[in-house]
Amino acid sequence: MLLTTLYIIGITAEAMTGALAAGRKHMDWFGVMLVASATAIGGGTVRDILLGHYPLGWVANPHYLMITCAAGVVTTWMASWVAKNHKFFITLDALGLIVFSIIGSRIAMDMGLPPFICMVSALVTGVFGGLLRDLMCRRPPMVLHKELYASVSFLAGGMYWGLMHLGINELIATVSTLVVGFSFRMAAAKFGWSLPIFRFDAEPEGSH
Amino acid sequence: MLLTTLYIIGITAEAMTGALAAGRKHMDWFGVMLVASATAIGGGTVRDILLGHYPLGWVANPHYLMITCAAGVVTTWMASWVAKNHKFFITLDALGLIVFSIIGSRIAMDMGLPPFICMVSALVTGVFGGLLRDLMCRRPPMVLHKELYASVSFLAGGMYWGLMHLGINELIATVSTLVVGFSFRMAAAKFGWSLPIFRFDAEPEGSH
Amino acid sequence: MLLTTLYIIGITAEAMTGALAAGRKHMDWFGVMLVASATAIGGGTVRDILLGHYPLGWVANPHYLMITCAAGVVTTWMASWVAKNHKFFITLDALGLIVFSIIGSRIAMDMGLPPFICMVSALVTGVFGGLLRDLMCRRPPMVLHKELYASVSFLAGGMYWGLMHLGINELIATVSTLVVGFSFRMAAAKFGWSLPIFRFDAEPEGSH
Repeated sequence: MLLTTLYIIGITAEAMTGALAAGRKHMDWFGVMLVASATAIGGGTVRDILLGHYPLGWVANPHYLMITCAAGVVTTWMASWVAKNHKFFITLDALGLIVFSIIGSRIAMDMGLPPFICMVSALVTGVFGGLLRDLMCRRPPMVLHKELYASVSFLAGGMYWGLMHLGINELIATVSTLVVGFSFRMAAAKFGWSLPIFRFDAEPEGSH
Repeated sequence: MLLTTLYIIGITAEAMTGALAAGRKHMDWFGVMLVASATAIGGGTVRDILLGHYPLGWVANPHYLMITCAAGVVTTWMASWVAKNHKFFITLDALGLIVFSIIGSRIAMDMGLPPFICMVSALVTGVFGGLLRDLMCRRPPMVLHKELYASVSFLAGGMYWGLMHLGINELIATVSTLVVGFSFRMAAAKFGWSLPIFRFDAEPEGSH
Repeated sequence: MLLTTLYIIGITAEAMTGALAAGRKHMDWFGVMLVASATAIGGGTVRDILLGHYPLGWVANPHYLMITCAAGVVTTWMASWVAKNHKFFITLDALGLIVFSIIGSRIAMDMGLPPFICMVSALVTGVFGGLLRDLMCRRPPMVLHKELYASVSFLAGGMYWGLMHLGINELIATVSTLVVGFSFRMAAAKFGWSLPIFRFDAEPEGSH
C-alpha cells in the first residue's frame, strides 16, 4: 500500500522530468508521452524483460501507463512551474529512485534470484528509465557522469535484500531502506559525492 | 491471406526505406540488411518482447527476415529508382502502418489483453521500426516531430479492436480499418495535420 | 570446458575494450562497468531476449557479470597497458567473436530452430555487444563500417551448425570452427577485406 502510493508518486514525477526533456527537443505530444513513459516505467520494463518476468507491470496494470502519458501532457501546460520547482523534483526523483530500487530488489527476490542479481535488478529498475530518456533525447546519459545515483540504487537494493533476508518485518525493511537510501542520495547530490571518473584520451580508436 | 500479402508488401517497402537511410550513412551491406530488417520487423519484435509473445514472428517464419535482408540489398542496386518514386513509397508506408497496426492490435486481443494495451500494441508495431532505424542511423526520430503517424496507428488499433469487439466479420473489420486508417494517414501527410509541439527552452538542464 | 574457458577469456577481453571506450567518454566507474558488461555480455543478452531463452546467462550465472564489472574497473588502472597491447586485444576479440558465434549457434540449435536462425543467433551473440557499446558511447557503430566482422560471425555460426548437423564430434566441430573462423577474421582485418559500402547521397530526406 505504502509502496504502491509512493510508486505512483514516483512514476508521475519521473514522467514530468521526461516530458521536460522531450520539450527541450521540441517533440510533439506523442514524443512527450513516449519519453515521459519511458522515463517513468522504462526501468521496470527493462528489468522485467531481462528477468523474463511477464506480464510487464504496465501490461498487467494499464493505468500506470495512462498515468505517465497524462503526466506528460499535463507537463506541457505547466512546464515553467515544474522548472521553477526544480528542487522539489530532485527530491521526488530521489524518493522515486529508492522506491523503484526496493520494487526491483523485491521482484528478483520473489523469483528466487541470488542477492547480487537482486541488487542489479534494483539498479536496472532505478536507473534505466533515465538512460532511455537520455538516449531518446540524444543527450549524454546523466547517470554515467554525475554524483552517486546508480550506486545508491544498487546499495538500496542490497539493504532491502539484507533486511528481508534477516526476517525483518516488511514494512520496517521498506521504511528503513527508504529513509537511509533517500538520505544517502540527497547527501550525494548536496555534497557532490561521486564515483571516480575514468579518463582515457591517449590513443586513437582502432580496435574493434 | 489478405493481411499476409499486405504484410509482405509492407515489410518490403519498409526495408527499402531503411536501406536508403543506411546508405545515407555509408554503411556496408551488413549495416544495410540490419537497418532494413530493424525498420521492417523491429516494431513487431519490440511488441512481442513487451508482450512476452514468443516465438517472435521472424524466428517462427525466418523467410520474413530473409525478405527484408534481400530487399535491403536489392535497394542498393536501385536506390535512385526508390528515391525517385518517393510518393509511391509514402503510399506503401501508409499502407504498411495500418497493416502493422491491425496485426499488433489482433495479437494483443488474442492474448486477452485490454483495449488500451491493444492500441498500444498497434502503435508499437506500427511505429517502433522507424524509431529503431532512426536510432541506428543516429538521426532525430521522425515520428516524434512530424505529422500524425503514431496517433493514426493507435486509433487504427482501436478501431479494429472496436469492430472485432462488436462481432463484425473479420474481413470487413480488416478492410474497413485499412480504408479509414490509410485515408486518415494520407490526409494527415497531405494537409500537414500534426499534434501540438511542446517547446521548452526556458531553463538549463540540471535535475536528474 | 574448452568453450567455457574461452568464453571467460572472451568476455574479459571484450569488457576491457568496452571500458576503454567508456574512458574516452569520461564516464564514472558505474558507466565503465555498464559499458564493459554490455560489450561483453550484451550480445548474448539480446540473443536470449530475441529467442525467449530464459533465464539469461548472467542471471543464471551471476559470476559472469561480476567478471565483466571487475574487468572494467581493473582496466581503469591499466588503460595504457591495454592500449599499448592493441594487437593482442584484436586477437582476443577475434577469438571471442568465434566463441560467441559458436555459443549462439548452439543455443539456437538446442532450441530446435532452423539453420538460418542459428546463424542469425551466432551473429547477434557475436556482434550486438559491440553495437550496444557504440550506442552507449554515442559513436558510429564500427561493425557497420569496417572489415568483415558480422559476416564472419554469421558464417562461423553456419559452419558449426553444418558440422554438428553432419554428426561430427562436438569437440572437433568446435575446434574446427574456431580455427577457420579465427583465421578468416584475422585475415579480413589484416588484408582489409570488407563488404561493399552503400553510399546514397542523392536526395534529401523526406519520406517517413
